[in-house]
Amino acid sequence: VARPDLPLPSDRVWTDPEKLAPYARDEASTGKLPLAVAFPVDASEVAAVMRWASAHRVPVIPRGAGSGLSGAAVPLADAVVLSLEKMNRILSIDPENMTATVEPGVITGDIRRAAAAAGLLYAPIPASLDFCTIGGNVATNAGGLCAVKYGVTREHVLGLEAVLPTGETIVTGGALAKNSTAYNLTQLLCGSEGTLAVIVKIILKLLPLPAETVTMLAPFDSVDALAKAVVTVVSGKVIPATMELLPRAAVRCVLAKHPEYSYPFPEKVASLLLELDGMDANLVAEQATAVAAILQAHGAGEPVVATTPARRAELWTLRKQVRDSIAHTAPYVEADAVVPRAKLPDLVRAADAAGVAAGLEQITYGHAGDGNLHTYFWRGTHDDVAWARASEIALTHLFTATVALGGTLSGEHGLGHLKRDYLPLALAPETIALMKRLKAAFDPAGILNPHKVFP
Amino acid sequence: VARPDLPLPSDRVWTDPEKLAPYARDEASTGKLPLAVAFPVDASEVAAVMRWASAHRVPVIPRGAGSGLSGAAVPLADAVVLSLEKMNRILSIDPENMTATVEPGVITGDIRRAAAAAGLLYAPIPASLDFCTIGGNVATNAGGLCAVKYGVTREHVLGLEAVLPTGETIVTGGALAKNSTAYNLTQLLCGSEGTLAVIVKIILKLLPLPAETVTMLAPFDSVDALAKAVVTVVSGKVIPATMELLPRAAVRCVLAKHPEYSYPFPEKVASLLLELDGMDANLVAEQATAVAAILQAHGAGEPVVATTPARRAELWTLRKQVRDSIAHTAPYVEADAVVPRAKLPDLVRAADAAGVAAGLEQITYGHAGDGNLHTYFWRGTHDDVAWARASEIALTHLFTATVALGGTLSGEHGLGHLKRDYLPLALAPETIALMKRLKAAFDPAGILNPHKVFP
Repeated sequence: VARPDLPLPSDRVWTDPEKLAPYARDEASTGKLPLAVAFPVDASEVAAVMRWASAHRVPVIPRGAGSGLSGAAVPLADAVVLSLEKMNRILSIDPENMTATVEPGVITGDIRRAAAAAGLLYAPIPASLDFCTIGGNVATNAGGLCAVKYGVTREHVLGLEAVLPTGETIVTGGALAKNSTAYNLTQLLCGSEGTLAVIVKIILKLLPLPAETVTMLAPFDSVDALAKAVVTVVSGKVIPATMELLPRAAVRCVLAKHPEYSYPFPEKVASLLLELDGMDANLVAEQATAVAAILQAHGAGEPVVATTPARRAELWTLRKQVRDSIAHTAPYVEADAVVPRAKLPDLVRAADAAGVAAGLEQITYGHAGDGNLHTYFWRGTHDDVAWARASEIALTHLFTATVALGGTLSGEHGLGHLKRDYLPLALAPETIALMKRLKAAFDPAGILNPHKVFP
Repeated sequence: VARPDLPLPSDRVWTDPEKLAPYARDEASTGKLPLAVAFPVDASEVAAVMRWASAHRVPVIPRGAGSGLSGAAVPLADAVVLSLEKMNRILSIDPENMTATVEPGVITGDIRRAAAAAGLLYAPIPASLDFCTIGGNVATNAGGLCAVKYGVTREHVLGLEAVLPTGETIVTGGALAKNSTAYNLTQLLCGSEGTLAVIVKIILKLLPLPAETVTMLAPFDSVDALAKAVVTVVSGKVIPATMELLPRAAVRCVLAKHPEYSYPFPEKVASLLLELDGMDANLVAEQATAVAAILQAHGAGEPVVATTPARRAELWTLRKQVRDSIAHTAPYVEADAVVPRAKLPDLVRAADAAGVAAGLEQITYGHAGDGNLHTYFWRGTHDDVAWARASEIALTHLFTATVALGGTLSGEHGLGHLKRDYLPLALAPETIALMKRLKAAFDPAGILNPHKVFP
């Protein structure tokens, strides 16, 4: 394919191979060098690119920050990468309607800060908060660190503007508390991994900003005890915002990379990072006492409790480095399994068993309160062939067990190309066939992010 | 068409015209007598009916309690009505995962009671709570009386089992806090008005049951003042569960039908029914004081406040009879418009103006805190031709104004056949065309609930 004659000013179409290289990768995989990277600045330019792509039958790969973990934004064949990073304006924060309207390229943390400045909360906190974009969050239906109480990205999206693969622009939903007007395309696009349409505008729901937050870190002698404590807490009267499992192996990875960090329980088998928030200091303090008692009744040691922003930040610092530290320690494959919350201890055991079955060491950490854990299986000393076989055994074993527990393959990362082949473990052929018909209804020529999600 | 040879035992296939008559109606319209009504008792019987219908190209109309207000469950041509009323089991209430799994024919109020018995809350409260079914709630994405704080039905559905028009069964979502595994069909089916698939099982999210509730009724001298007070309250730190507008005309309708009711403010232009709930009595009481002060600063008289279940029920009694009393007073057409909350005063004015433009009296009441009001335009003394013209003028006027305010046609009732022709006021042709392609992907032969939603 020759240099694509994209309908954008030439300074916003990159074709220099050196500049293209970062656009062949996400945080977990490297694909093929794109033919070009296009940087539209508004919806009409996105539509022009899609019309051009349709006319020339050139695949287009939408991309936010490239912080994805499933390879969804990675080209696998000749394609143009459509980077939304220049569409990065917060268009409005509306305190009366408690909504934010944003372009897809805005960094998620910037939305949280802009909302907080207006006394409001944009609730979802992906761990990649400070560098991921909201468009990518919507495309993967990102979850993150406070979904226990607040839910995932999908539950905070009220409306979208999106460009179809064929170039038409659609508007879905609105800044509305209720909407039963024809089909709900908004939540269908959430989590569709850029395969159905290119999101160009997002209306988000905002909430009142909690006035009080208490963070605690509780040490446990076993992951199983921690998992059971989490189930007991969440099925009680108090829903924490955050409940994160930090096993010793994950703590060691972070401390190896960041020896300057102090951590209160480096030798404990596991710690639980838990956060409670609310409008009333006394009530949140009472809840913290009650929750700490439940944890201790399940074998936790005395928790460290932080109520000031500075002390809370200390407890969070290590947690925020876990993924990056693990990912830069050694080669891995990662699973993002999710089970019904009460099955959390079983998921922990399933991850252990998958590692044993594949002959791979693993670290399992993450969103215990959501039943959503990330398992990293290490390559160790395996050669290419052995590693390919072992990682497939590990993922197949873990996903099969997850599905048997009533769970599924991905809680928040999506399938991209790294997990697509496992989809038949979770969904019946009839369901997959229906989804492919929906894909064709959006994208008859199959040019938008092909080779993703489906085997 | 001859008596349909449906694949169910003959006692569960009705063809006697007298018994069929109720199945030609919903709460707002009467259609054509069905060829038969089929009463499956499980998913495999639903699948058998759909395979039969596909083979014979016979349209099928899924139906819950028939309490809909848009004509979505009404046959408009030769068709079999598929009543889900015998699939009415609560399959499980799971306190550890905080989920309920139910069949579609369960009365919504029964789910709330079963959850409460386990110390849990199924949050949505459609006003038809005591006779509507959860399957119908999912199909219309029902909203109701506490969506201000808790959101609509769609936000409480975690997973579905559904039978496609072609007879295959699909499973969507699961009892999971997070799910980014391929496309989100769960929330696409919510609000699809029985046009995409027949829902045969529903997994619902449950919440901790609030320990404390305070209800108040505040009198206002103008609907505009009430509407502005609602906007101020909701954009503050406290989100009430319920904020309902009761105009004097609605109160009069109820008292004419129920002279035995006592009502504290029968002569006030409007009252606001407001409910706060939470886990802590002191906090809820403090919030009630703060909210009452906001209302009074906006011109409200001293509110009546109730904290005991009996006193709270008194305040709710009249509200719950509003729709029924209005609907049985005289012929009407109804709108279910929804606008961004801050535009509530404009929606009230638009309803007034629509009545004036059409030469029709109207009553506008309902879910002020959601920006979702029900407007009933009375027929008065118009003959058939004049009434058809006037009601079209009224709806066109109101919907056009609603869309101009950033709102849409239906907040919670759906479009069915009564509102389908107005859809082009809300959605562009490209969006409607895409939705029709999705319909075809589910229902290639067009046999499931045809003639609904789309013009």
